[in-house]
Order: sequence, then C-alpha cells, then structure tokens
Amino acid sequence: MGKIICTGLGPGDPDLMAVKSDRLIRAATHVAYFRKLGRRGQARRIVDGMLRADAVEYAMEYPVTTELPFDSPEYILALAQFYDAWADRLATLAITEDVVVLCEGDPFFYGSFMHLYTRLKGRAVVEVIPGITGMSGCWHATGMPITWGDDVLSVLMGTLPEEDLIRHMRAADALAIMKTGRNLPRVRRALAAAGRLEDAWLVERGTMPDQRMARLVDVDDKDCPYFAIVLVHGTGRRPEVGGME
Amino acid sequence: MGKIICTGLGPGDPDLMAVKSDRLIRAATHVAYFRKLGRRGQARRIVDGMLRADAVEYAMEYPVTTELPFDSPEYILALAQFYDAWADRLATLAITEDVVVLCEGDPFFYGSFMHLYTRLKGRAVVEVIPGITGMSGCWHATGMPITWGDDVLSVLMGTLPEEDLIRHMRAADALAIMKTGRNLPRVRRALAAAGRLEDAWLVERGTMPDQRMARLVDVDDKDCPYFAIVLVHGTGRRPEVGGME
Repeated sequence: MGKIICTGLGPGDPDLMAVKSDRLIRAATHVAYFRKLGRRGQARRIVDGMLRADAVEYAMEYPVTTELPFDSPEYILALAQFYDAWADRLATLAITEDVVVLCEGDPFFYGSFMHLYTRLKGRAVVEVIPGITGMSGCWHATGMPITWGDDVLSVLMGTLPEEDLIRHMRAADALAIMKTGRNLPRVRRALAAAGRLEDAWLVERGTMPDQRMARLVDVDDKDCPYFAIVLVHGTGRRPEVGGME
Repeated sequence: MGKIICTGLGPGDPDLMAVKSDRLIRAATHVAYFRKLGRRGQARRIVDGMLRADAVEYAMEYPVTTELPFDSPEYILALAQFYDAWADRLATLAITEDVVVLCEGDPFFYGSFMHLYTRLKGRAVVEVIPGITGMSGCWHATGMPITWGDDVLSVLMGTLPEEDLIRHMRAADALAIMKTGRNLPRVRRALAAAGRLEDAWLVERGTMPDQRMARLVDVDDKDCPYFAIVLVHGTGRRPEVGGME
C-alpha cells in the first residue's frame, strides 16, 4: 500500500527546501509535477540533480493556459477533467507505490495540488509537507522584514477588481500581491490610489540565482512576468517608538 | 572575519527546517537564541540533539515579559537596551567568529531578530535564512489549504483594537490571527461580529508532536497560550465553480 506525498519545494533555491522534502525527493521512485504544455516546468527545474536515475517521472501538463478566458465554461471543464484524470492516475499508482508530487512554495498556500488533494480524499493516503512560500523568498530578497510588531499583512491577487485592491491596500500595513504579469497596470493604479506606490517593490525569482528586484516605479508595465510578486513592507511598532510584546 | 547568520527554524518540527539551516546549525560553534528569563526556550528546544558538543551557547534572555505594560516607557527602554547590548556583543563576536542565531518561524515575518538586524546594519555581515512560518505549520496541522484561487489572506495580531479586527475579518477571505492568549476573548467577539466565528480553528504547536487543534467555539477563553494561532480557511474560486488561473 503506497501513499501520495506532496512536497513543498519552497521559493526556488533547493537549499531552502525542508530537510524532510529533500530526503523524500532524493529517495523517490515515482515523481509527479505540474507544468505548462511544452515547458520544462519550474518545479522540475528546482529538483535538477536530486532525482534518482531510475525515478519514473509524471509531467502533469495543464491542458490550457491563456488560450481560453479563465472563467469560460470550456476552460473550467478542461481543467476539471485534467485534475480528475490525474487524481485517478495517482490514486491507481498509489495502490502499490509511493508517489512524490513536487509543488513550488507551500502546497496549502494557493497551490495547484489542492485540486488533486480534494479529489483524492478517501481514495489514497495523502501527506502534504509544508514549504517556504514564494512570497517569503521574495521578501528575503529585499533584505527587509515584511512585518513588525502589530502590522497587518494582506496577501492579494492581481486578478482582483481594482476597487477591491484599493480597499485592501488602504487597510493593511504590509502587502504581498501575487498573479501580477498582465495585471500589473491595475495593481499599479490601485497602489497609487491607496498612496502605497512609492513604497512598492517588484521581486522575481526571490532566492534563485537570477533573482531580480526593483522599485515598482522603476519597472515598465510590459516587463512583468505572471509569477513576479509586488511587496510593500510594514513599518510596525518598534521598541524605540511604540513598544512590542 | 566572521558573520552573523540568522536561521529560520520553521514551525517546530526540526525536519521542516531548510536544508541550509540544518547544515549551518549542525556545524555552528557559536549559537545564540532568544528566550524568556528562566525558560529553556522554544528555539533552543527545536535544535535539541543537533548542536556540536563544543558549541558555545548565548541565551539572549528578555529582561521583562509581562511585569510591565508593553507600551510603558520603562518596558520600551528595557527592551531597547537589551537589543542594544546583544547587538554590541554579537557584532564583537562576529569580528572573529561565525555566529548562528536561531529564530522560530521565518525571521523576517514578525521575528524578534529584526531588532538586532537593524542595529547590526553596517557593523557586521549579516545573513538571514528564511523558514516555514509558524502559521503555515498551523494550517498544515488542520489538513486544509488556507487559500485558493483569488482568496485574500489577512494576517492579524490579537492585540489590535476590536473595531480594527472586525473590519479586517469582514474584508478578507482567509485569516491567520496571531498573539492570541489573553486577547482571545476580543478575537472571539470580533470573529462573531464579522460572522466568521463558526469557521475558526485554534491551533497550537502545529507540526510538533504535541500539536493541538480545535474549533474555536469548543475552546475556553482561559485555555489559550499566547503563541496559539486562530485560522479561518478561505474557500476560494475552484475549477468546478468559478475557474482558476
């Protein structure tokens, strides 16, 4: 009787993976990961040089990415069938084998694995191992703490309506905004409306050798990949000025 | 010429520490950590059995904890002097030695180390290694993803005024509330006012052998340590109902 073990890979530097995930990945004989059709895949790239030579790999390739609107019935159906099919395949495999599923960041924090997780409930033994989030890798890249004292941190998706973004940006002390890419113009307008634009940073591939970081005001709207994260650091209460716990 | 390396220890299970932190801690000859006066200290406990026999330990004991109000001038001064003194001592030590500082969770996410970090700027080489946050360990303990799709996650401190708590609890999809303890009655009232009390979980020591988890409605106000975390899971957009990226 095997099981399915989803390992959080962390923000990108393999040295930042949990000891437990590192050990499981190096010993794995069956390894599955998501990737875009025709791409190598970031999750697979992170474990380069770690897999056993005889490991069997399962590339779970998304059936569609940007060809269809994300809220169209066709897109939703295609994705649901994709997750259904892979849940079936992994559940069958786990009858006899342990399967390690690779997930960037932390699987329970906006991870794609949860769509398999819900489908595998009651059909296979599933273990999920946390990882350092991508946003944590990005705030470490800036060399500044993201939150202090009693700061409120809000994590927002760039896909949200502009008025929602503005409202949350005004209310929170620290911000992490994901799914940027083509949403960057809206994110930028919302930050400006909330009075936070001057304090915003754009970070790509935090902790990776090719990490890139710039003040958002210095970045062109067209020069922003989907996975780049916008950060606004909290300034919090400090012992010098207002006490701490 | 030495340096100061702050290692994020993660949520508590030593097996969830980053590979890099694990390696540095096992090799360290000088190890510093915060703790309450007269306590063993959670950070030190996490690395039990990992330190070299000849490692020199520096317990940085908080001068005060609950004896003084956290916003009193005396408390603020005592803490500032405490951080000043340890920054001096670590900077002096780092002239000749590498010093590993142990920090629970992720050092740049509400970590005490940042008070040393700001004081050490320009005086010593300082490296900070991220860790899995305590809140991530707690949502993994619940066995449910904290965020899906376009969910907004807000991280709140139980020390905030009740009206602020209510406002943020109403606005966000998913919640992580830290610094609970004696603030739990206020957190509970705010969750009830925001209509989120029924969905709230209280998690202690997520990922540790003695982890404890309960629906908040089933927990007594007096039975809540300061480090316990209240979680409300997001329900998000899913492929079945509303599409995803």
